[in-house]
Amino acid sequence: MKWYESPLVDESIVISARVRFARNFEKYPFPIKLTDSAAQEMAAATARAALSGNGTAFTDELRYFDITDTPQESLLPLMERHVLSSHMVAKKGVKGIILNGREDVSVMLNEEDHARIQSIFPGDNLDGAYAAADALDTLIEDKGQHKYAFDQEYGFLTSCPTNAGTGMRASLMLHLPALENTGYIAKMLPALGKFRMTVRGIHGEGSESLGAVYQISNQFSLGKPETEILQALKSAVNWIINQEKSMREKFFTKHRIAVEDKLYRSWGILTSCRTLDHKEGMNLLSDARMGFESGIYTMPRPAKTIYALMTNIQPGSLCAIAGKPLNQEERNIYRAEYIREQLKA
Amino acid sequence: MKWYESPLVDESIVISARVRFARNFEKYPFPIKLTDSAAQEMAAATARAALSGNGTAFTDELRYFDITDTPQESLLPLMERHVLSSHMVAKKGVKGIILNGREDVSVMLNEEDHARIQSIFPGDNLDGAYAAADALDTLIEDKGQHKYAFDQEYGFLTSCPTNAGTGMRASLMLHLPALENTGYIAKMLPALGKFRMTVRGIHGEGSESLGAVYQISNQFSLGKPETEILQALKSAVNWIINQEKSMREKFFTKHRIAVEDKLYRSWGILTSCRTLDHKEGMNLLSDARMGFESGIYTMPRPAKTIYALMTNIQPGSLCAIAGKPLNQEERNIYRAEYIREQLKA
Repeated sequence: MKWYESPLVDESIVISARVRFARNFEKYPFPIKLTDSAAQEMAAATARAALSGNGTAFTDELRYFDITDTPQESLLPLMERHVLSSHMVAKKGVKGIILNGREDVSVMLNEEDHARIQSIFPGDNLDGAYAAADALDTLIEDKGQHKYAFDQEYGFLTSCPTNAGTGMRASLMLHLPALENTGYIAKMLPALGKFRMTVRGIHGEGSESLGAVYQISNQFSLGKPETEILQALKSAVNWIINQEKSMREKFFTKHRIAVEDKLYRSWGILTSCRTLDHKEGMNLLSDARMGFESGIYTMPRPAKTIYALMTNIQPGSLCAIAGKPLNQEERNIYRAEYIREQLKA
Repeated sequence: MKWYESPLVDESIVISARVRFARNFEKYPFPIKLTDSAAQEMAAATARAALSGNGTAFTDELRYFDITDTPQESLLPLMERHVLSSHMVAKKGVKGIILNGREDVSVMLNEEDHARIQSIFPGDNLDGAYAAADALDTLIEDKGQHKYAFDQEYGFLTSCPTNAGTGMRASLMLHLPALENTGYIAKMLPALGKFRMTVRGIHGEGSESLGAVYQISNQFSLGKPETEILQALKSAVNWIINQEKSMREKFFTKHRIAVEDKLYRSWGILTSCRTLDHKEGMNLLSDARMGFESGIYTMPRPAKTIYALMTNIQPGSLCAIAGKPLNQEERNIYRAEYIREQLKA
């Protein structure tokens, strides 16, 4: 089971917690200057160190994949599942990935930095995600042959200075339909700046929000210890959750029938339509998620979590499920078919 | 069972065939000049004549109702079922109705004319409707005490000269979703004028078309024998049916997925929504009717015909089913509930 198939994912406003560390080794120049052979050596050494924890440190076995020659369309689903960055999918040259079956722990090798160590946990378990990423980070340095590039003043050194310091980006992925539908989310951006936090769409920097899914993450990785950054993120997210809850309550009280009608119509369309584009699919699934969360829906939940469906209807993931390349029209038809099948009573 | 609950109604483009005769008795002035007591005498005498056929001429027993003091809201459902005209519902003073249980034969008494004899048959059975109305017409004159007002030159005399001559209005009610969705129906009006036919919405003169339901009827009742008028109506309607069929075929061939998608989404909304206004309900039911007719829908047909649902979701009929007066918001909620219940697998 992947992490996003956990029932936890559909139980609350918070979908998942993610922590990643940007790390580079003293011995090697940054990836942009790294030769292919040195990159291969670096990746293999890092993988050895990480995989040495299998059987003791991790219950779910890590594996190493050299994805240098993997076609982009095969990497796309991993990007859609937040394991690879779009930069990692697009970049040429040596690249590797360390990954477990649940996909809740991973390392991108030779991305913008030598190692991007990441953990994603379902629900609001930010401490769990931090602990897992931290454990892997420690293992890679302790069991590895090379020390991380570290400066007394700037902390961990990174290709892009905005990642220096802790090298940590922590984020929580939230489902915020009420704040989105009321347009209130836009008004919250300045206040989030004060928390030194930033809001992004479902696929991070510059990405559009789809299905009312938003990522809240720390703006700065420098100048504060990790624990304080995590605490600030939790505070910001608690504030957002309270706003979302009070907005839902206000909306439900004032427009109960209209809300029920909208959510049930979305269910009707999801279970009936014959063609469905990605954006509409995400919006309808967002309604469905709210329908179950709010207790408005009385039908049993589908076997897969709604967020798993949101994940699987993305273009690359959908083709992977179909087992063949599909053009846009074919994808829209297959998306409708797939969702109908999954939501069948 | 009412005539519109016959499975025939959902089998074809033609929903129903209707024939009505406008008749007045020599003995009495037209209704506008008729005293209440004379009107009562006229109505009772006509009812006696009509009901004398019970047990021999008609299998489904006719009954007479004095509706002089019946509140308008109680008459509304009969108007929505095409038994009463809106004039009949609104008018003050003496009025009566002769009606059988199937509601396929009826007489409005003291409407614009003394007697409006009507028959509605399911499907395209225009000859059947004509025969039934004709039989009742004959019975009323033969068994009655009074002769119809008739002129050698102008034929049957009527309050409004446009009804003189045969006094007959024949119409076929058609379901024309393809001609409506393509906007082609508007272009057909001049051609229908050449057939001396006219197109009206679901509730006759001046009414809006709802649910892609149209009535085609003869423009003139004078100057041609009944058989020729009926033949001209059939020809006009055959032409329209062919247009509708070819438009459906063209549309299905070109936009199969889009058509399937639209019809199935409508089904999804019908079976899921929590509030539904009259107009949207009619449009969705129109899609549902086309879904079944075209063989696109694979689910079993509901117990009631789709046209029966179209009939029952009208404001007056809906309140009658609910058994209590409902304001517009309550009606919209009850309409959604009623349809969900009726379409439940």
